[in-house]
Amino acid sequence: MSILDKINSPQDVKKLSLEEMKTLAQDIREGILTRVNAIGGHLGPDLGIVETTIALHYVFNSPVDKIVFDVSHQVYPHKMLTGRKEGFTNPLEHSEISGYFNPNESEHDPFIIGHTSTSISLATGLAKARDLKGENYNIIALIGDGSLSGGEAFEGFNNASVLNSNFIAIINDNEMSIAETHGGLYKNLAELRESKGKAENNFFKTFGFEYYYVEEGNDIKTMIDILQKVKDTNKPTIIHIHTLKGKGYEPAILDKESYHWQLPGFMDKHEDTEQIESYYSITTDYILKKHEKDNTVIAISPSTPGAYGFTKEFRNKLGKNYTDVGIAEEHAVAFASGLAKNGAKPILAVLSSFIQRTYDQLSQDLALNNSPATLLICWGAISPADATHLGVFDIPMISNIPNIVYLAPTCKEEYLRMLDWSVEQTKYPVAIRVPFGNVISTGIEDTTDYSILNKFKVEEQGKEIAILGLGNFLQLAKEVKQELKSKMNINATVINPRFITGLDKELLETLKQDHSLVITLEDGVLEGGFGEKIASYYGSSNMKVLNYGAQKEFTDRIPLDKLYEKYHLTKELIVKDIKNIL
Amino acid sequence: MSILDKINSPQDVKKLSLEEMKTLAQDIREGILTRVNAIGGHLGPDLGIVETTIALHYVFNSPVDKIVFDVSHQVYPHKMLTGRKEGFTNPLEHSEISGYFNPNESEHDPFIIGHTSTSISLATGLAKARDLKGENYNIIALIGDGSLSGGEAFEGFNNASVLNSNFIAIINDNEMSIAETHGGLYKNLAELRESKGKAENNFFKTFGFEYYYVEEGNDIKTMIDILQKVKDTNKPTIIHIHTLKGKGYEPAILDKESYHWQLPGFMDKHEDTEQIESYYSITTDYILKKHEKDNTVIAISPSTPGAYGFTKEFRNKLGKNYTDVGIAEEHAVAFASGLAKNGAKPILAVLSSFIQRTYDQLSQDLALNNSPATLLICWGAISPADATHLGVFDIPMISNIPNIVYLAPTCKEEYLRMLDWSVEQTKYPVAIRVPFGNVISTGIEDTTDYSILNKFKVEEQGKEIAILGLGNFLQLAKEVKQELKSKMNINATVINPRFITGLDKELLETLKQDHSLVITLEDGVLEGGFGEKIASYYGSSNMKVLNYGAQKEFTDRIPLDKLYEKYHLTKELIVKDIKNIL
Repeated sequence: MSILDKINSPQDVKKLSLEEMKTLAQDIREGILTRVNAIGGHLGPDLGIVETTIALHYVFNSPVDKIVFDVSHQVYPHKMLTGRKEGFTNPLEHSEISGYFNPNESEHDPFIIGHTSTSISLATGLAKARDLKGENYNIIALIGDGSLSGGEAFEGFNNASVLNSNFIAIINDNEMSIAETHGGLYKNLAELRESKGKAENNFFKTFGFEYYYVEEGNDIKTMIDILQKVKDTNKPTIIHIHTLKGKGYEPAILDKESYHWQLPGFMDKHEDTEQIESYYSITTDYILKKHEKDNTVIAISPSTPGAYGFTKEFRNKLGKNYTDVGIAEEHAVAFASGLAKNGAKPILAVLSSFIQRTYDQLSQDLALNNSPATLLICWGAISPADATHLGVFDIPMISNIPNIVYLAPTCKEEYLRMLDWSVEQTKYPVAIRVPFGNVISTGIEDTTDYSILNKFKVEEQGKEIAILGLGNFLQLAKEVKQELKSKMNINATVINPRFITGLDKELLETLKQDHSLVITLEDGVLEGGFGEKIASYYGSSNMKVLNYGAQKEFTDRIPLDKLYEKYHLTKELIVKDIKNIL
Repeated sequence: MSILDKINSPQDVKKLSLEEMKTLAQDIREGILTRVNAIGGHLGPDLGIVETTIALHYVFNSPVDKIVFDVSHQVYPHKMLTGRKEGFTNPLEHSEISGYFNPNESEHDPFIIGHTSTSISLATGLAKARDLKGENYNIIALIGDGSLSGGEAFEGFNNASVLNSNFIAIINDNEMSIAETHGGLYKNLAELRESKGKAENNFFKTFGFEYYYVEEGNDIKTMIDILQKVKDTNKPTIIHIHTLKGKGYEPAILDKESYHWQLPGFMDKHEDTEQIESYYSITTDYILKKHEKDNTVIAISPSTPGAYGFTKEFRNKLGKNYTDVGIAEEHAVAFASGLAKNGAKPILAVLSSFIQRTYDQLSQDLALNNSPATLLICWGAISPADATHLGVFDIPMISNIPNIVYLAPTCKEEYLRMLDWSVEQTKYPVAIRVPFGNVISTGIEDTTDYSILNKFKVEEQGKEIAILGLGNFLQLAKEVKQELKSKMNINATVINPRFITGLDKELLETLKQDHSLVITLEDGVLEGGFGEKIASYYGSSNMKVLNYGAQKEFTDRIPLDKLYEKYHLTKELIVKDIKNIL
């Protein structure tokens, strides 16, 4: 029987001897590796925080004391100690437990969290409520060094530091974001590590925090001592701990970036996986080629380069023409605007789920200034992702901002043409919804002039019913056409809108002549999206309109086929709906 | 002839003697006071930055050297020195020149700017483009201490500090945001002022910036000396200057908050204006009364308390139940979520234009967690405002996020009922679009149970045509009804949707029985908004739908009647449209 077998709640941790806790740390690491090898997930950050998590639950009294884990990248050990170890040790229950902080799973998780840099502000709210209610307990935020670069964390520090009551933030400094860290702050963290916390300049002290540096963040006894020291403090306090990302698993220590997150089976596979063409390799090939001829081309990532194939090799080749701004999407958009305004050609790649950080910067810094930057919106699609990482909201968020041209390519050729048009033009801020999934190639070069805005493309001319298949869903539109042909003998028109941000009113008007129904398909949430604009356009006419897309909801790890069925995003269900209204 | 008369471009400033520049400073102050007294505008921040602006244009070579003014609150002297003095000295031209940074007015303004905390990131982009192109000139950002609390500024500092090239940020520390400043950072600024820049802790140095402190920020010679010293530096450099907000106008020095911005005629009026009831006085009265009985009620402002009547008196009465988080909207939303999760009753007031900073926090920190916080969205309406301060985008931005209940009260009674319901309930994050304009009171207490979501209210039952007047536009709906009656003898139905975030499908279905046309009216941008959802709902039916609202565009100081005419938001134009389609 392992030590972990005996741990069913944090209360059980408190009964252990130091030696038992050390064994527990090994058990936990085994659980992390087992789970990630089985279903994938965050590896390096979790391996590095094992000892601190044991110490936290030994010293503090969760859930009365409340611990907030920033971004949840290091929450696995916490889950194993708070009644959810089966999600790690038992293959049958792996999928029962999410990889993120979640109050629906446990009272030991105060929030659902999956985006970075939020813990300080959320914990400040918990602490202030405690003070208003006259209660007494500890509020602890655990935040990685990578998350510190996000503006929300800074805003949180500025406010947490003046709480005048108990508040403890643990800075888990493992010297890494997902990739390497970037920015002046990280030079200061390095100085603090090198001086064992005694450097002249100290970011945290400038806010007035009590500050402690702990070199041995992977030593349970050391961590217990410092946590006991600050427990029940009545001053906002920072504990800056130095830990080893990937500790206990050598490959994760040697290649911290690759092992930040891993796919299932990583322990078994050792040969390089075959390089197949993806929209990301198409992107990086394009940028490298462009950069050879034009030194003003610059690729930007807000600290998620691996998510879209900005590999170390790619980054090194670009040199000073690549900037990782850290987890700082707001800055990334304003920075791109400044670059574009001064004659450079910025290409900012960002995930659909994280562009959410930048509504105001898209509007004020970029769109209002008509700065001709290129934004690549990646992973935009209905998916079985966690509720925190859905890619369905970017269309309503981006497309209702004036001036931005948001494009939805449907194949490699369109994507490359749009990308090059965007990079070379100087009139508009352009966002491109990078197609999701396997590369589709027509083999026919796209020669469209995209400076003629809002021109939809008729892919297949027919009559009676027109199907507008936006971006990823052009393929579904073609399937629906086939189904209509075979089931209802209707020869439908298939249209590829290509532009998300404007209507081809001329074409829509023409459709009135010999069509009575328009179907819209979009790979995102319907509310505020593309299809509703078509419905509004036809509102005063006799044209009927059916909009298809995701419902406005946070889905959480729902299989894609279930979502498609729920939203009627299959050719069979769509044709059934059509039969019902015709 | 004054000195200012001779200044037509920055080149002319370079020819002046120090004595002449001092006289010029007086001329500029006179221009500021003349303009603000005539048409209103920012006063205190502009009065305080006169000497620095003269020194900037004396030392640097704009527009080759590029100066970025954060938020534009202190851009008047710059405008006067860059060919736009007539907008200040000549009453006929006051309205020709905006109160904000704007490249459409002058090549000396690199960007349109009106939201805070953006200058560092924008300037970093300019600097990086310069470096990629191998060019040589200075990039200067001028940012007030109030703007430092915004996360985007922090993200900018983190990146600007590692540029390895010329970059100069001037921190204009006048010891004030719009109201007083808040947060640990400001204690550090105070230490730096008190120690003349020599305090042990130094926020700016922690990033690695070269740092200079200037106590006499209102002395032209001192400012010229320091700027000449750092000109052409090849290191990211901070000049922290201490200035006097309101300098040269005693009332603005004595009451810095009130004189941050002033209405026309402020120099003439001295008696207190009569207190009339407004939606803001209704709000503060409610909060104070609620707080007397419930110590968990807490009002929050992101540094714009005056914009919605959170006066000094109100703030003092609330004491620890009021938190100004600084200009930090992201933190404000996450903080409110944390408060609500831990049993407090947060009420966060924020302008429509600034809630834009928080799309991701609304989605991830608040909505995904279903935290029962109350958000008051103020100034949401089509208006003749500057392009940077439009209140038309909040509906598409907020209402397409799952879980949030966004309410649109149409009168005092509904507003109070919704507010109290929101504060007391514990199931949903609730945003209330505070009505814009004069208070409308029905005199009839609203007893609606708003926990029954998405229940629209039929205000006047009729047939044939149903008019949905959302929020501010219920009054217009009633006018359209009258016009239809008198011009077309149609007895239309008037509906008050009250809920922006969901459809009353039962009612909409019923309308099909004896209505053939539905009109929607919303006081915001149409794209992604409320009306399109109605059009989509009826897309598969024979019901015709006409959506009215603002177009997706950045309007800039366009008179309201012109906008209403353009958008057909008058009873006459709407009835004309109806005639055309019936």
